Order: sequence, then C-alpha cells, then structure tokens
Amino acid sequence: MKQRNPKAKLLLGPGPSNPDPRVLRALAEPTLGHLDPDFVAIMDETAELLRYVFNTKNELTIPVSGTGSAGMDAALVNSVEPGDKAIICSAGVFGDRMVDVAERAGAQVVKVQSPWGEPIDPDDVKKAIRKNPDAKVVGIIHGETSTGVLQPLDEIAAAVHEAGMRIVVDTVASLGGVDVPTDRLGLDFVYSGSQKCLSCPPGLAPITLSEKAVTFVENRKTKCQSWYFDLGMIRKYWGPERLYHHTAPINMIYALNESLRIIKEEGLEARFARHKAAQEALISGLSGLGLEPVVNEPYRLPTLTTVYVPEGVQEAEVRRQLMDEFGIEVAGGLGVFKGKIWRIGLMGTNATRANVIRLLGALKEVLK
Amino acid sequence: MKQRNPKAKLLLGPGPSNPDPRVLRALAEPTLGHLDPDFVAIMDETAELLRYVFNTKNELTIPVSGTGSAGMDAALVNSVEPGDKAIICSAGVFGDRMVDVAERAGAQVVKVQSPWGEPIDPDDVKKAIRKNPDAKVVGIIHGETSTGVLQPLDEIAAAVHEAGMRIVVDTVASLGGVDVPTDRLGLDFVYSGSQKCLSCPPGLAPITLSEKAVTFVENRKTKCQSWYFDLGMIRKYWGPERLYHHTAPINMIYALNESLRIIKEEGLEARFARHKAAQEALISGLSGLGLEPVVNEPYRLPTLTTVYVPEGVQEAEVRRQLMDEFGIEVAGGLGVFKGKIWRIGLMGTNATRANVIRLLGALKEVLK
Repeated sequence: MKQRNPKAKLLLGPGPSNPDPRVLRALAEPTLGHLDPDFVAIMDETAELLRYVFNTKNELTIPVSGTGSAGMDAALVNSVEPGDKAIICSAGVFGDRMVDVAERAGAQVVKVQSPWGEPIDPDDVKKAIRKNPDAKVVGIIHGETSTGVLQPLDEIAAAVHEAGMRIVVDTVASLGGVDVPTDRLGLDFVYSGSQKCLSCPPGLAPITLSEKAVTFVENRKTKCQSWYFDLGMIRKYWGPERLYHHTAPINMIYALNESLRIIKEEGLEARFARHKAAQEALISGLSGLGLEPVVNEPYRLPTLTTVYVPEGVQEAEVRRQLMDEFGIEVAGGLGVFKGKIWRIGLMGTNATRANVIRLLGALKEVLK
Repeated sequence: MKQRNPKAKLLLGPGPSNPDPRVLRALAEPTLGHLDPDFVAIMDETAELLRYVFNTKNELTIPVSGTGSAGMDAALVNSVEPGDKAIICSAGVFGDRMVDVAERAGAQVVKVQSPWGEPIDPDDVKKAIRKNPDAKVVGIIHGETSTGVLQPLDEIAAAVHEAGMRIVVDTVASLGGVDVPTDRLGLDFVYSGSQKCLSCPPGLAPITLSEKAVTFVENRKTKCQSWYFDLGMIRKYWGPERLYHHTAPINMIYALNESLRIIKEEGLEARFARHKAAQEALISGLSGLGLEPVVNEPYRLPTLTTVYVPEGVQEAEVRRQLMDEFGIEVAGGLGVFKGKIWRIGLMGTNATRANVIRLLGALKEVLK
C-alpha cells in the first residue's frame, strides 16, 4: 500500500478551513484516559475557553463528540419533546436541514421562509409566533453556509423570549469569526462546529445552553430520544460529578483546546475585525474581476462570501483548475444556487489579506 | 496559560488504549476538504481496511463520526422502527445501555439477562425468540467491557436468522483483538469503537451492515429518528454518489486509516494470538500474586481481563498508586462490580508481554 500523503491545500471553501500548525501538533499529543485528572483539567479549560468564544457564562458549555451536524441533532433532540410545535426559519440548505432534524425529533414544524440569499424577515417570525402561541421552540441559522447570509438575531430573539419560547441558533459558520451574542440575547441552545472559524479539524460541535435550556432539559417529560446526545447525561460527565457517559474524543479535545487558546490570544474583537477586513479585500478584488456578490450589506456573512458565476463560465471547471493548478479549494453552490455561485470561505486562520491576494491572482489567471 | 503537556501513560484500562506513534503522526497530517479526491481515496481505502478487520464483504462498512457509543446509537436507531419489539441481551453495563438506547429508539424491549461475569445462555435467547415471534431485532454485546466476558455468538446468530429477525452486535471491546465473524454468522448490524483494540484515539465508530440490513434501512416505513446517524444518507456520502451529508472528521479518518494499515500488516490471526498470549501471561502472573480472574474459560475476553480485588485491599488506592508512581492506568469495576474488581485491558498495540511484566512488577510493589 502506498503511503498516505495528503498535500496541504488552501481551504477556502465553506469548511473545513486550514487548522493552525499548533492545532495539528496538539492532535498528536499522547492519548490520556478519559477520566485521567490531567485530561479532566484540559476539559475544564476547554469549557472555559468555549464560554469565551460563545460570550457566555453558561455552565453547560461543551463540545459535543461529533461534527457540526451533530450539534444540530443534539440541539434539536434536547430542545424538543415529541409533539412540540417548533417554528423553524429556513432560507437555505441548513435551515431546510433543521426542519428535517426537528421533524425527526418529533416536532410539529411551522416553517418561516425567505428567498435564498436574503435573511429571514423578523416580522415573519413575529407573525408565526402570533399565529402559533403554542409553539415551544424557534430555530434559526445565524450564518447560512449555503447562501452567505448573516442573520440579525436581536429582534427575533426578543420576540421569542416575549412569547416564552426557546430559541435554537446554529452558529456553525459564524462562531469565532463573527460576534455570537449568546448571553446578551439570552440564546437558549447555541451550537457550532470545530472546522470553520475555530480553525480546528472537523469532529467536534461546541454547544452552550442557557439556564432556561438546562432547566428544560432536566425536567423533560420524555427521555431525550438520543442516548449519545443526551445533554442531561453529558452534563454530568463534563460537570463536577465526572459521571462516565461516553469516552470523549481525547485528541480532538487537545486540538480544540489549542485552537481556542489561539483565539483567546488574538482576542475576539481583533479576530472579527480581521475577518471583516479580509472579506472587504476579497469583495473589492472580485468586483475588479467583474464578479458580483450574492448578498447585499448589511447581511453579508464575513466568514463566507458568495459570488455569482459570470455568464458563459464553466463554474466546476474553474474550481477544478483552482484546485489542480493552484492548490486552492473553493466551493460551488448548493440547491437553487447549484452551478450559479461560488462560495469562498475566509475562516479563522485563513482570513488574511495574503490569502485573498493568492486567490485573486489564481482566479484572474483561470478566468483569463 | 500554562502549556498543555499530557504525559504519556500506559493505558491498561478498558480504553482508550495507547495508539501507535504512527497513528498519532497521521492525526497531524494536513486537513483536506471532505470532498477532495485525495481524501475520497483515503475514505475508500479505509472502508476496504475496515472490511478486512470486520471479516466482511459488506458494501456498507464505514466509520460513524462519533465515539463507540455513537456506534450503538447508530446501530439501534437504524435497525429499529418505533414500536418494533427488540430482544436485548444484557449481562453488564453495555447490555443495560443497549436496552436504554433501544427504548429511546422506540423499541418495545424484551430483556434476556445473565448474572454479571457470565455469558448470555443461548437457550434463554431461543426461549425469548419462541415467546416473541413478532420481535424484529436481537441485540447482544460480543465483548462486555464491564465484566470481561466474551460472548459466543454462533448459536444465537443461527436462532435469530431462523426466526427471520435482525441481529445487532456490539464489538466495541473485541474488534481487532478477537475474531468478529461478521460474514460467517451473517451478523446484520455490527459496530465498534476506534479507541480499543484498533489502537486509534477515540472519536470514530466503525460499523458494518449486511445486505439484509441495508435493504431494511432503505425500505423503512419511518425516517431514521436521527439525522446525523441516518445510515441511508451516510451510505450515499461514502458510496460512489459522494452526496454531501456531514463533514467527515478528516484527521481522525487519517488516524483510523493508519491504525488499520498496522493491523493489516500484522495480520488478524497473528494479532488475535498476540492478544491471547498476553492475557495468558497476565492471568498467570496475577495468580502468582494471589489474584483470581472473574470470568471462567472459555468465556474470558482476551482483550480485557477482570480480576477480583483481594480482601482488605483498598482498590481505588491501588489504582491511584499505579497511576501516580508507575504511570499505569487500570480501571475499577462498574455497577455491581464497583469496588470489587479491577479491569485490565491489553488492547491492540498494548497487548505485549513487556507491558504485562511492567504491570505485574508495579502491582507487586503496590500490593506489598
């Protein structure tokens, strides 16, 4: 068998992004037992660092042992009891996926939709809440990776709380690159993925639950339908009880720990400004090449830029050349945007002017 | 913040075991995109190597993106439809867990039990099958990590097939250390974990489904209740369609790939013999120290030896000394065995005479 030899590429798709070399090194540290006091100290520190990036004091703040999609599953199966009505906002692939996940969790789903490329209108959510005062949960995507929209959350969160419902927020594409106002808006179930703006390999799904959410989880009438994602039990492993639930993915936790340390060292504000500046440089360069962004300000997700493929250009062929000749990965569109847009991620470590220049140079050459 | 510096220890508990240094190095290889052709080739090779350790030609043979417990969740939510009757065999913590997981998946569970430390009696399973001809699934643990019992499967699998039911088998503690006769016995849903006898860090749950199991999954009347673990969808990502489901844990897949290559290089037969020889050396040494095994032959799980704590010995204190003074981790008992037994794993890379001698020397010193 030939040796495995994955060549480093510049990952400017919607994730995974390139982890910092420090993070890759952390992965290779010696595996410890999952109840080893040295490992437990790393768990505690990781939870504390996650509270920092989530802007929260929430006690129950942990990485779920799965990829970002596991975060969505975990958030929904814990926030919904069978038969609960859930208002799910969808304007892209991940909103649609949340509808599916919520239904599998036994929810009776009411959809609020917007055209792809636009944010959800808060008035539509308010209307849905008024028409469905018996709904228990409102679910929404903060950064929609399929469209590049950043969803404003203030008005929607306020309306959800006024109605006494729980709000579930997907921050897979935003956490670590854009402000996630967990405590300021009292968001109840907020989850993310390790492989985007946290610049850690895929495999962990950070999640944080408000006090209200924890109270709900602890007082459910029915058991959580997933044993593996039962946050009531997982809480007792990450909390002072250290009650064995499942074996944590030890080395992935090292990597997440290191990636969060890097974020703390940089500081969230500086990190957000860096993402914003990188996107501005990208948009300006793309417009010089005659490429138009899909999303209008102020709804552009700084971490993932979507841009229309020009008339007459073979979009998949452009991506193939970028990959084969320049070692750069960007992504095509999904769903209604298939074949029509490119998705360019500048996430975490990758959100630099140097990477923007490298991509623009290559793109200019390929489009020539 | 102090640098993270987990010191290598000899992990002789029930898992994680120590990964080979080659496996840790693989973890640190550059992260690729989850649809990158170079990564896709690694996925295909990993699936092929998994077929080797599972002794199967099953097409649907993949690592689930979660730890061993995720394998149990995945196996049950895919094999059971709500309301299905399931016969679950339990003689330890993991059998009990399977009861819980099956119930959460909507199964109506009939339990078959044995005293802890003994295997399930095939006649009891046959009786349960006769009394419940409407049951759809029989679930059983091959290597029960809480007791150290290796469960013979031949008679039980034959009875299950004769009754037209599906058999779900947990091989978390056996795969890679003991023969798992997937195709020979026509086992339908067989899952494991990466962190035991495969000597890879925790984070992946290999699973394989028979043709009958795949047909069932593809023709369910209800959607799988877990989106994340829906093997019908995951199959289309690992299969030739390469349909995006969730982002695979790229670097963990490198590690699993490397650990499986190591197994292939050694060969399964040699590996099983090595585990068996290591256990025999251990049992003989332990009996020299006056320690008695919990399980009688031929039911001893070669990969995990359970032994009674002698009268008057503080079992947790012995483990603390082994860890603090000798850097060796062994585990205590769970459930009815709490405080009464030690559990000593000689798994994968760790199953060597040198490790046995090192443990026995330390244990002799501590028990003095």
